Amino acid sequence: MTTYRLDLSWDGTAYCGWQRQPSHLSIQECVERALRCIFPTESIVVHAAGRTDSGVHALQQIAGFSIIGERDPWIIQKGLNSKLPVDIVCLSVERMEDGFHPRYASKEKLYRYRILNRSRRCPFRNLHTWHIPQSLDVHQMHVAAKYFEGTHDFQAFRAQKCSANSTVRTITRSELLIQGDELHFEVQGKGFLRHMVRIMTGTLISIGRQRKPATFIEEALHCTKRTGLGETAPSHGLWLVWTSLLDKECEIE
Amino acid sequence: MTTYRLDLSWDGTAYCGWQRQPSHLSIQECVERALRCIFPTESIVVHAAGRTDSGVHALQQIAGFSIIGERDPWIIQKGLNSKLPVDIVCLSVERMEDGFHPRYASKEKLYRYRILNRSRRCPFRNLHTWHIPQSLDVHQMHVAAKYFEGTHDFQAFRAQKCSANSTVRTITRSELLIQGDELHFEVQGKGFLRHMVRIMTGTLISIGRQRKPATFIEEALHCTKRTGLGETAPSHGLWLVWTSLLDKECEIE
Repeated sequence: MTTYRLDLSWDGTAYCGWQRQPSHLSIQECVERALRCIFPTESIVVHAAGRTDSGVHALQQIAGFSIIGERDPWIIQKGLNSKLPVDIVCLSVERMEDGFHPRYASKEKLYRYRILNRSRRCPFRNLHTWHIPQSLDVHQMHVAAKYFEGTHDFQAFRAQKCSANSTVRTITRSELLIQGDELHFEVQGKGFLRHMVRIMTGTLISIGRQRKPATFIEEALHCTKRTGLGETAPSHGLWLVWTSLLDKECEIE
Repeated sequence: MTTYRLDLSWDGTAYCGWQRQPSHLSIQECVERALRCIFPTESIVVHAAGRTDSGVHALQQIAGFSIIGERDPWIIQKGLNSKLPVDIVCLSVERMEDGFHPRYASKEKLYRYRILNRSRRCPFRNLHTWHIPQSLDVHQMHVAAKYFEGTHDFQAFRAQKCSANSTVRTITRSELLIQGDELHFEVQGKGFLRHMVRIMTGTLISIGRQRKPATFIEEALHCTKRTGLGETAPSHGLWLVWTSLLDKECEIE
């Protein structure tokens, strides 16, 4: 078997997320379909470093697959980009050592949540940002975002359907940045619970609206229930920026 | 009657262009529908400074309408933005002198054609740029673009269906700009023929691909037929940037 790493980027608007689902089109299905055109005799399953929700975008996600044969990575990349839908792009293909699995090889991820904070909507960023027309207390949000850094029990910050056994996660960076008329909430860590970044964002917004003080995050990280946290921010504002791999997971020279 | 000027911006992806059509949704129809919600007893027709094709975007287009009653412009703007679809935005509303008609009042327009010139597609700019993966001779395109400036007969640069009587138009600025991984063809003038900017862009691309020399534009401006010009660039790369009004067309203080 030969194993390849795929770096992918997509606009998530039209998809039900990464993972294959019976009745909706997923990114995984599109990538597997495209690979099947290139390798018609192989039965290929593509794994990603993690799942993403419906509507979430990716600037760079790592995926991987194995085939019995072998093919020049550049030919695979060219083939994929000619077969994939226009809103999914293969950024690169690399041959990897046997046993490479992006989920186990992934070290950290960076998520960015884009908030369009001005009175007017922007007709060109509807599907890529969350529009908050009210003015926000950005300083308090900035202070609040810092409370997420470190190792905490994020039990209150997960979707009802989340099935993770442990809810303890480590956040290595959590920051609110001003980018023109947008606020970017950037959060980096090894792993995230379902809807975790979106609930964190919603809670920051309720602090920005002065419904809660910044110190509320500290309290919420000791809570076991979602009660009192902000709404779950909509998925279309969420961007997976990059995934990094463990040092040992290098490509074959 | 009270007359108002509307400044509008839209993402043209979902629309058949500005003008109302029986079987497709137009920007004009959306704006008129939204105004009808605000003024249910008035019969309102909205006029624009010019038509735009299906798929063409507008950063700022000027429109106008008249009503028998009177209403605070700010209330109209707020009402419109709550009733318009998310991909159409009203930027401002101003009360104008009687007899204001955006078509007759418009002085110049600036169009921008966005070309994404890199090997890889961008999943987030598919609907806003024309992707040309081959490398282009940008210097020759830059030289060629300058030939459009001045008053010329653009007979060769119009769609077959174009019904304009005169094909002479004056271009006050025509320039190719490099913006990161995009090339922006900016063209400014009082009036344009149907598909004119898109045919100009397609011709520049054929010069960039070295199928024609830059001086070919000079020849084409003396031709009466489209033969030999480039393809018509797709509508989704075209942006109406702004429309300016004649000096006398000022708002009521």
